[in-house]
Amino acid sequence: MENFDYCTPTQYVFGRGTEDRVGGLSANCLGNKILLCFGEGSVVRSGLLERVKRSLGAAAVEFIEFGGIQPNPTDDRVYEGIDLCRSHGVTGLLAVGGGSVIDTAKAIAGGVPYRGDFWDFWAGKAVMDRALPVGVVLTIAAAGSEGSGNSVITKIDGAKKVSLRTNVLRPRFSILNPELTMTLPAYQTACGIVDMMAHILERYFSPSADCDVTDRMCEGALKAIVDIAPRVIETPDDYQARANIMWSGTVAHNGICGVGRIEDWTSHAMEHELSAIYGVAHGAGLSVVFPAWIAYVARIKPDKVLQLGSRVFGVSGVDATVGALKNFNRSISMPVTLGELGIDNPDIDLLVRKLHETKGALIGSYCPTDAHASEAIYRLML
Amino acid sequence: MENFDYCTPTQYVFGRGTEDRVGGLSANCLGNKILLCFGEGSVVRSGLLERVKRSLGAAAVEFIEFGGIQPNPTDDRVYEGIDLCRSHGVTGLLAVGGGSVIDTAKAIAGGVPYRGDFWDFWAGKAVMDRALPVGVVLTIAAAGSEGSGNSVITKIDGAKKVSLRTNVLRPRFSILNPELTMTLPAYQTACGIVDMMAHILERYFSPSADCDVTDRMCEGALKAIVDIAPRVIETPDDYQARANIMWSGTVAHNGICGVGRIEDWTSHAMEHELSAIYGVAHGAGLSVVFPAWIAYVARIKPDKVLQLGSRVFGVSGVDATVGALKNFNRSISMPVTLGELGIDNPDIDLLVRKLHETKGALIGSYCPTDAHASEAIYRLML
Repeated sequence: MENFDYCTPTQYVFGRGTEDRVGGLSANCLGNKILLCFGEGSVVRSGLLERVKRSLGAAAVEFIEFGGIQPNPTDDRVYEGIDLCRSHGVTGLLAVGGGSVIDTAKAIAGGVPYRGDFWDFWAGKAVMDRALPVGVVLTIAAAGSEGSGNSVITKIDGAKKVSLRTNVLRPRFSILNPELTMTLPAYQTACGIVDMMAHILERYFSPSADCDVTDRMCEGALKAIVDIAPRVIETPDDYQARANIMWSGTVAHNGICGVGRIEDWTSHAMEHELSAIYGVAHGAGLSVVFPAWIAYVARIKPDKVLQLGSRVFGVSGVDATVGALKNFNRSISMPVTLGELGIDNPDIDLLVRKLHETKGALIGSYCPTDAHASEAIYRLML
Repeated sequence: MENFDYCTPTQYVFGRGTEDRVGGLSANCLGNKILLCFGEGSVVRSGLLERVKRSLGAAAVEFIEFGGIQPNPTDDRVYEGIDLCRSHGVTGLLAVGGGSVIDTAKAIAGGVPYRGDFWDFWAGKAVMDRALPVGVVLTIAAAGSEGSGNSVITKIDGAKKVSLRTNVLRPRFSILNPELTMTLPAYQTACGIVDMMAHILERYFSPSADCDVTDRMCEGALKAIVDIAPRVIETPDDYQARANIMWSGTVAHNGICGVGRIEDWTSHAMEHELSAIYGVAHGAGLSVVFPAWIAYVARIKPDKVLQLGSRVFGVSGVDATVGALKNFNRSISMPVTLGELGIDNPDIDLLVRKLHETKGALIGSYCPTDAHASEAIYRLML
């Protein structure tokens, strides 16, 4: 185990009907004038946004609406939100939606009190030391942004998809009602499941030895996800299955699965290029990337791959482990090749070049990945 | 899964040498005049207290020493500490030690801003809504008080050992350096291991169904503890083994193993009577109580017992599960009968009477325990 600092101050408010507490929580944590961030309309159609507004109104919290945030959120909306917050004297942000909405709200929250270009933080040119407070009403179990300090934004100029992580951006509260995820299409549900598994695996594959308790807790969460996923796909309104998947998505990314070790994140970096260039859904992209990455690193450092296979999938050997992960992904109708992902003629040279432009010559920690290796991994996705 | 609110705001500062950061953390979180709480001398002999004082001095944090806190801490020291804090205008408390020191510091912290008798909170006559901030430098991996909102105090009059849990008492920071636990005697180390396993098991045995992800994470932590315990007993200065046990003790009790379910806590209540009447070490008492409790409840609700056996100990059947837990406890030289605990002629009538006087007619949630049942469980410890 490595030395670590770990703090998760987010108040999780979990269960049926909990969105009715959003007004009171916002008044306590976000101040009296908030930017109400949401996506492209499902929260309007479902009536959730109306209920949230009612709760805010009852708590005398004023709000400015900021809707239409899209998947793989982009910097243009962040600049727009920052201007809006400044001109209205906003005191905090409430994100009603999934990872894209939350990540956009976080980026705006960090940008408002900063004099320079908010992208400085994502470009590594400045360190964020404060942000407006952010609250969350989660509607998609996937990104884990409701419990993390992460925000992934795509810069339109150059199609750069970059993740920032800072404790400053951890939400003050996150309302998690599994009922709100019951109407998600099976495809989005499955994308979320792959994403949360990837968040655990990026931490599980680490050069840090002797992390037995963190390993075992990761394996426990992975096993629970693998067991429950079929239920949630087959019976979308199974509350308990939705509840377990929702909480898994949060623990997958709030840091508890990463304490005491250096994390990897190569697969996410490789997927971010697929999303940035081909516009694929993040979870679907990870469904293709992760088995390929595991197959490649197993040639060099097989031990952890074998451990994953035996403890989570109950199989022996590298091929069986990669096969089990692919089979699981296929079982929830996720792609495992670039072709199945809809990328018939991938420009691997471009992917490799952009990957290393963004992330440097060597990526990750478990098996530091150079351009030669990343090319080989992309080819394993064919 | 039940609805839940969950928040762990404690900043964990984990690893080698981290106690050198205590001055800066105290200045940030506890104010400029603190009550420095510690135990009976091991922190003096080891030089730790001196290092802590040096770090506090360097950060210009003034301190009043409050030493000599004993295991199974009592209300008299709490009253004494409250008076001391009030007369010196103390702004926060720093506990350097294990559970007894931390629990005493927490009780003082809650008592200082309250006009009435601090015991009102433990007696359920008042609800704590504020407390002075508490910081921790942990020296014993066991009680989990470094990450919990719990404080267990014994009222000398009537020998009542009572636990209070409130988020108000969660430490602001906890410094966890596994090196500080290397000099612990094997007996205390083993007591701590039993205690942390019990903290997980009290949450694992729950009437709440469908907590797959929490179950799996509990099982993961238990499995890690079972695997690592022999290493830490045989090689007390194995840093990585100590590190894993230390972090296990924290996750066992900071709530992550209990989210989404009603917890049980019958075994702790039964052990608190053993400690209060016979003065036994808490962990050693739990080592006797838990196998007996499991053997009893398995007659009524065997499912979770069987799940524990197969997933954690790799055995089938109730008897094999109880046997595996007893064998594990014996393997780290812990007692599994009242006789081995040094109680040759237990007054079971007194134990049962005091238990239900303190906790009411029915205790726990997995198999609510009446006086008839608790008598049977105490008899299983003979």
